Amino acid sequence: MPELLKLITPSAALDLILQSVLEIEVGTEKVATSKSLGRVARQSYHSKSTLPAFNKSSVDGFSVRAQDTFGASDSLPQYITVVGEVPMGKEPQLEISEGQSAIAYTGGMLAKNADSVIMVEYTNSVDTETIEVTKPVAKGENVVFAGEDIKPKDKIIVSGHTIRPQDIGALSALGINELQVSLRPKVAIISTGDELVPAESDPKLGQIRDLNSHTISALVNQAGGVPCQIGIFKDDYELQLSAAKQAIKDCDIIVFSAGSSVSNRDLTVKVFEALGEPGILAHGIAIKPGKPTILGLAKNKPLIGLPGNPVSALVVADLLLKPVIRSLMGDMNPSFRHEISALLTSDIPSRSGREDHVPVKLEQVKGVLSATPVFGKSNLIFTLVKSDGTVCVPTDIAGLYKGQTVTVRIY
Amino acid sequence: MPELLKLITPSAALDLILQSVLEIEVGTEKVATSKSLGRVARQSYHSKSTLPAFNKSSVDGFSVRAQDTFGASDSLPQYITVVGEVPMGKEPQLEISEGQSAIAYTGGMLAKNADSVIMVEYTNSVDTETIEVTKPVAKGENVVFAGEDIKPKDKIIVSGHTIRPQDIGALSALGINELQVSLRPKVAIISTGDELVPAESDPKLGQIRDLNSHTISALVNQAGGVPCQIGIFKDDYELQLSAAKQAIKDCDIIVFSAGSSVSNRDLTVKVFEALGEPGILAHGIAIKPGKPTILGLAKNKPLIGLPGNPVSALVVADLLLKPVIRSLMGDMNPSFRHEISALLTSDIPSRSGREDHVPVKLEQVKGVLSATPVFGKSNLIFTLVKSDGTVCVPTDIAGLYKGQTVTVRIY
Repeated sequence: MPELLKLITPSAALDLILQSVLEIEVGTEKVATSKSLGRVARQSYHSKSTLPAFNKSSVDGFSVRAQDTFGASDSLPQYITVVGEVPMGKEPQLEISEGQSAIAYTGGMLAKNADSVIMVEYTNSVDTETIEVTKPVAKGENVVFAGEDIKPKDKIIVSGHTIRPQDIGALSALGINELQVSLRPKVAIISTGDELVPAESDPKLGQIRDLNSHTISALVNQAGGVPCQIGIFKDDYELQLSAAKQAIKDCDIIVFSAGSSVSNRDLTVKVFEALGEPGILAHGIAIKPGKPTILGLAKNKPLIGLPGNPVSALVVADLLLKPVIRSLMGDMNPSFRHEISALLTSDIPSRSGREDHVPVKLEQVKGVLSATPVFGKSNLIFTLVKSDGTVCVPTDIAGLYKGQTVTVRIY
Repeated sequence: MPELLKLITPSAALDLILQSVLEIEVGTEKVATSKSLGRVARQSYHSKSTLPAFNKSSVDGFSVRAQDTFGASDSLPQYITVVGEVPMGKEPQLEISEGQSAIAYTGGMLAKNADSVIMVEYTNSVDTETIEVTKPVAKGENVVFAGEDIKPKDKIIVSGHTIRPQDIGALSALGINELQVSLRPKVAIISTGDELVPAESDPKLGQIRDLNSHTISALVNQAGGVPCQIGIFKDDYELQLSAAKQAIKDCDIIVFSAGSSVSNRDLTVKVFEALGEPGILAHGIAIKPGKPTILGLAKNKPLIGLPGNPVSALVVADLLLKPVIRSLMGDMNPSFRHEISALLTSDIPSRSGREDHVPVKLEQVKGVLSATPVFGKSNLIFTLVKSDGTVCVPTDIAGLYKGQTVTVRIY
């Protein structure tokens, strides 16, 4: 009997599903900028203000006219009169003239006529009204000029940008206190299998607890989506189809756990086909673990059929479901995955023709990060629990070698 | 005038504050395992069950006695009778004898007397009751044995472990549906400065909007803490002290933004000293940006005085505040920071004697990740907005060179 699935590569699968959902968008909502961490902006924002709004000192010291400090040195200091201070948060009332200065604080304004600030470290107090300056300053030194940070019409963030702490800072600084962001996509999770019982119940012999609902929910949360656990369904076509039809009305993405292979009890393909056009996009990916994966689309809703094996389900959801969630949110940024380099401590054999994702344990040994493969059957969830990430052995390579530097994808 | 701050290295500062808070713990609470993503377990969990609970098939096919398949090949198949199927989720009623098999599903049990499973791919259907087997199986092949994943008393997760999706899966599989986790530490954020106005108001000339409350809050959220924005306080010792005294009652960590340097309007040191023993632990770190940083401890509450400059505040909060939050949560795991390798596209000069954290922009160019320094005065928040992470130039190095591979810390 020939290979039952027509396999495509993991990267072809990712391209396929991302191309298919390219035009699909979830709605938007307005949120307070201060609550927008991790959300995706769905509007571009430009500055309407100048930042800083005024020339300000970047140090503690004295605002001066630079020319009055020229030639100053430790052995030949310049003597300068202190005529007062410019208080923080106030427009300067003080104006200085030749040989004069005013106390300046970091972030504060300069006295009128001053063009630079001498750091307090390069001054000595002579009496209450006089300082000696031991180093010259150049015009503009220790001053942040108005508009140096941002000018009106400058782009701040573009639509499709994921909000980070510094973006919240910049937007707050400009008084942009509300943002238009995408809604969190709702992901329906439908667990299938006659053998499944809820995690809260005690399985009889032959039964197992449904854990995929919970691992996939956690992963959806990580990606910024909202998991909707629809429930556990028997291997019954009508039951599964009616659950899927309801889910497609209520949610943005439909995920089936298990039933993704080709035996007569694998119903996911049949259910997906009945949901609408175009139906199945791909069935089978050249990856281990995760081969029996289904990608589909119906009524503008992406469909993902994950293998029931919990390790395969997690690996495939990480590779394919997460990017779909981000795409529906309108995330246009290149995503720099959480990947780090480490030294492999033992060989990893692999069969060419498929991409292998091998769990590894990371350890710092004398300042060097090492990755040790956690071997085990791919259906053992504890191989993932014992590991910190996975190393990918590409399709066209027969294995990786001890001592090689590898990229570990952290999860 | 000499250097006004006695500088310690960033790593010494981190060691100092982490040592100081080593014995400090926030309380614990019970949460549903399914809601525990990112929380830190404060109890170790061991298995009370065997997983899988029964020998199960890892493929779709036929459970057989291995000896009945010996010698099978494409040219000389073995003929085997199919006596029925073992349904999913059920104990087998079927028992096979010599030359017999039963239909087996992935995750299902084997028929009594069967010791292995032949994959459907290596069989052909002859008639409704007979298959030909074209490849032999070894005893135990395609079977996951009871206890192969986990046995009673096996360690699942230890106290101090941060919960990931796969941990939720493993705990759910074992019926452990509640976890004892640490509370999220409450972090009081007190913004100081006569020049500050809330982000929602319109600053007058000389004033600026308080953005640090919001960036630090976002960072606290990222680290798993609960930010408590106490408010904006004038440069007034009594006002700040009374706010800090209240905060120390209500919160687990006290963060001051601004006022961390040595001018007469820098009050943070004075306030921290008045809060209790041991008071100030360090003042001044050999880092750019972020030199005027204060670390303290009072009444078992860590105190962190951040520079007012928003870029310095973010860099220092990332380096020191985040680890303190994690430590209070009881996080015992090595934290593999979100760091990736990239090729530097231009030189970064640096002054030795301090650690420089230089913002860089990441770009994928023909499959190679490149890091381009975003130069700019260290007090410009938009240098951070334009960048994806920072490159650290260590204390004892005079700079980094174009073409060098560097580690970028993503934020």
